Amino acid sequence: MTDTPFFDRLRADAAGPWSRYIRHPFVLALGDGSLPAPKFRNFLVQDYLFLIQYARAYVLLAYKLDRPEDMRAALATADVLLTGEMPLHVRYCAGWGLDEAQMRAAPASLEMIAYTRYVLELGQAGDALDLMVALAPCIAGYAEIGAMLNAGLRPDNPYADWVAAYAGPEYNQSVAATMAMLERLAVTRGGAARYDALLNIFVQATECEAAFWETGWRAGAKAS
Amino acid sequence: MTDTPFFDRLRADAAGPWSRYIRHPFVLALGDGSLPAPKFRNFLVQDYLFLIQYARAYVLLAYKLDRPEDMRAALATADVLLTGEMPLHVRYCAGWGLDEAQMRAAPASLEMIAYTRYVLELGQAGDALDLMVALAPCIAGYAEIGAMLNAGLRPDNPYADWVAAYAGPEYNQSVAATMAMLERLAVTRGGAARYDALLNIFVQATECEAAFWETGWRAGAKAS
Amino acid sequence: MTDTPFFDRLRADAAGPWSRYIRHPFVLALGDGSLPAPKFRNFLVQDYLFLIQYARAYVLLAYKLDRPEDMRAALATADVLLTGEMPLHVRYCAGWGLDEAQMRAAPASLEMIAYTRYVLELGQAGDALDLMVALAPCIAGYAEIGAMLNAGLRPDNPYADWVAAYAGPEYNQSVAATMAMLERLAVTRGGAARYDALLNIFVQATECEAAFWETGWRAGAKAS
Amino acid sequence: MTDTPFFDRLRADAAGPWSRYIRHPFVLALGDGSLPAPKFRNFLVQDYLFLIQYARAYVLLAYKLDRPEDMRAALATADVLLTGEMPLHVRYCAGWGLDEAQMRAAPASLEMIAYTRYVLELGQAGDALDLMVALAPCIAGYAEIGAMLNAGLRPDNPYADWVAAYAGPEYNQSVAATMAMLERLAVTRGGAARYDALLNIFVQATECEAAFWETGWRAGAKAS
Repeated sequence: MTDTPFFDRLRADAAGPWSRYIRHPFVLALGDGSLPAPKFRNFLVQDYLFLIQYARAYVLLAYKLDRPEDMRAALATADVLLTGEMPLHVRYCAGWGLDEAQMRAAPASLEMIAYTRYVLELGQAGDALDLMVALAPCIAGYAEIGAMLNAGLRPDNPYADWVAAYAGPEYNQSVAATMAMLERLAVTRGGAARYDALLNIFVQATECEAAFWETGWRAGAKAS
Repeated sequence: MTDTPFFDRLRADAAGPWSRYIRHPFVLALGDGSLPAPKFRNFLVQDYLFLIQYARAYVLLAYKLDRPEDMRAALATADVLLTGEMPLHVRYCAGWGLDEAQMRAAPASLEMIAYTRYVLELGQAGDALDLMVALAPCIAGYAEIGAMLNAGLRPDNPYADWVAAYAGPEYNQSVAATMAMLERLAVTRGGAARYDALLNIFVQATECEAAFWETGWRAGAKAS
Repeated sequence: MTDTPFFDRLRADAAGPWSRYIRHPFVLALGDGSLPAPKFRNFLVQDYLFLIQYARAYVLLAYKLDRPEDMRAALATADVLLTGEMPLHVRYCAGWGLDEAQMRAAPASLEMIAYTRYVLELGQAGDALDLMVALAPCIAGYAEIGAMLNAGLRPDNPYADWVAAYAGPEYNQSVAATMAMLERLAVTRGGAARYDALLNIFVQATECEAAFWETGWRAGAKAS
Repeated sequence: MTDTPFFDRLRADAAGPWSRYIRHPFVLALGDGSLPAPKFRNFLVQDYLFLIQYARAYVLLAYKLDRPEDMRAALATADVLLTGEMPLHVRYCAGWGLDEAQMRAAPASLEMIAYTRYVLELGQAGDALDLMVALAPCIAGYAEIGAMLNAGLRPDNPYADWVAAYAGPEYNQSVAATMAMLERLAVTRGGAARYDALLNIFVQATECEAAFWETGWRAGAKAS
């Protein structure tokens, strides 16, 4: 093993799927402002449903960690999601004409179900490191997308606020804390010897992320 | 509560999704023999991957049951799947030109992931009854499809063996045992009071089944 | 079913074990101040280890609840335990000559392991209601003990602060919120039909609580 | 890492607890035939209750394994326990005047609860390797005890049949298969880097085994 961060190794070895996720047409259209509003609204609804499940995944991670310090860190993320980001998301969605009751009652897309249940069930079957690796593409990818889109953002882009949130210091601080936990778990839970299996998880979660953009891209499409 | 079996009540209240599952174009095309072979092969591959996860779900059910008798029953189903049905499936698939190594290495479809991980994770989060309700559409639905298609089956239908397996006494005996466990759990674990929540699970699992047929219907399509 | 709260029914039907827990010699000796300090210290150490596992149980409960509102409530309790009660407990223990590193390194007593792992594993195997019932004896019992001992407390009782904490409004508010969730889950998850099985869980958890006092009562005794 | 089997390393580093378990007074008294029959009967009852939970642990292990081959192996052990060893145990116990209904209704000892729930909950929180390490002291220790006692067994020892079962080829074949899975998991899931944490689990499970003998040693004692 070298000094390369564990995440960087995963990202490099998953370059193909990572690029399909980070540079998905939906993302690029967000960045140049050309994304049709109905597609974005469709994404926001599924993202609302996603946030609830994603918070559950951090709660499960807290259960799977031994030390009170680590539990507190994982719970802090779940708390940010449930009491910070969700109300923010709800207010932001209101600006796009979506209210919370409507979003909660919306049918979950197959992509949302596949992604969240894959991560959660893998977390139950495996250990904290398996789960952390499955969580990494979402948290690290949104930071990368935020930075990438922010670099070339035009002031009249209707999605500027969305981009700013993921390019901002608050989100990136939270990402740094979570990535540090991944690096620590990769050492203490034998990530090097488990690398191939963990890379498979990382690739699968990344492909689920890419598929999740489709939820928005195909405006109006849904499971069944 | 009436004397109507719990399953019958769920099936009646999920009539729309149930019909979309049971009478999906893929099923009807199987029945009249018009299904193109590549679509069927595509389905067989995902069904192979599905069987592994489905066996895991019965294993999880066994873990969630208290009495040794019930554990034995759930494990018997897992055993039928892993040591009986899987080798049979592998032999059957060989007749369609698919070998096991190839199927195991095939990328899982989004529909396969969504369905199996939904059931498994729900099983971890909930109790044996939640899990049993999520398992019911698959086991009961295939029996219903088997009977329905068998009734009008032409002898030259290339899928006759497949239909016969699900219309046969062996499969239907196993279904009866599992359905009896559902009825028992519905009584002992308060199914009546939990009806609405359980119906939601049943509907979601049924919609996942319907979506799973799409895996085959769209030959060659896959996740990401 | 009558209007009797579900908890009251459980408590009444577990009267024997409940009384052995609530009126355990250790508790009575706390109340009249006759408890030898080494026994109390021994209890405090195991109670520290217990708090970590008990927080994990509320985290697991949050994972098992569907609605964001309920998740937030369960996580609030976990947070009170991990970021509120644990530091308080550590400061209180310092007054008895125990530091945190020492407590964390102390061998877990068999009683502590039996109680916490019983609750946690039952929580994984069952649903949120099973888990909530297993958690109830601790939270409700300490409030009952606090009120009972506080009624006859002499000002020079060396354990007055401990009693005051569990007799105080802050603790009792938290108890009320948790008990309300138990009542709600008993309705929505079919508690009436599951009563006998849930009573078994309640009795087992209550007996584990009674056994836990032994951890302190037998000063110095430990597992292995 | 050397070529020393992973289990041998764990056993050597847990020499103290291992010796307290393997050479517990209860074991030695079994070996020289001096164990009072009531103590043995008390042990048999708890061992019956233990077998059910131990089977659940192998079921959970099967759920946590990826490959169908490994799942089949873990389920085979669960099956041996539930459909082979349990009926055998029941017949053997009948010879000591204990019937199954009586054993099933017996109150679980605190030692039985602590041991089984520790293993099961650790298995849920961790991965297949954590669980396998927690299972190792029981399976490997009984083989070691069987061989040790068998070496000096007098023909009139009333416990000769019990010793013979654990010294016999059938039991030892099953042990070898399970130990091989431990060695495999130690490689694939990074056991070397996780060694200290895994040793802690091994020591705790070994101490629980030692405590379990107390269940029998203290004839008639029970939880609460």
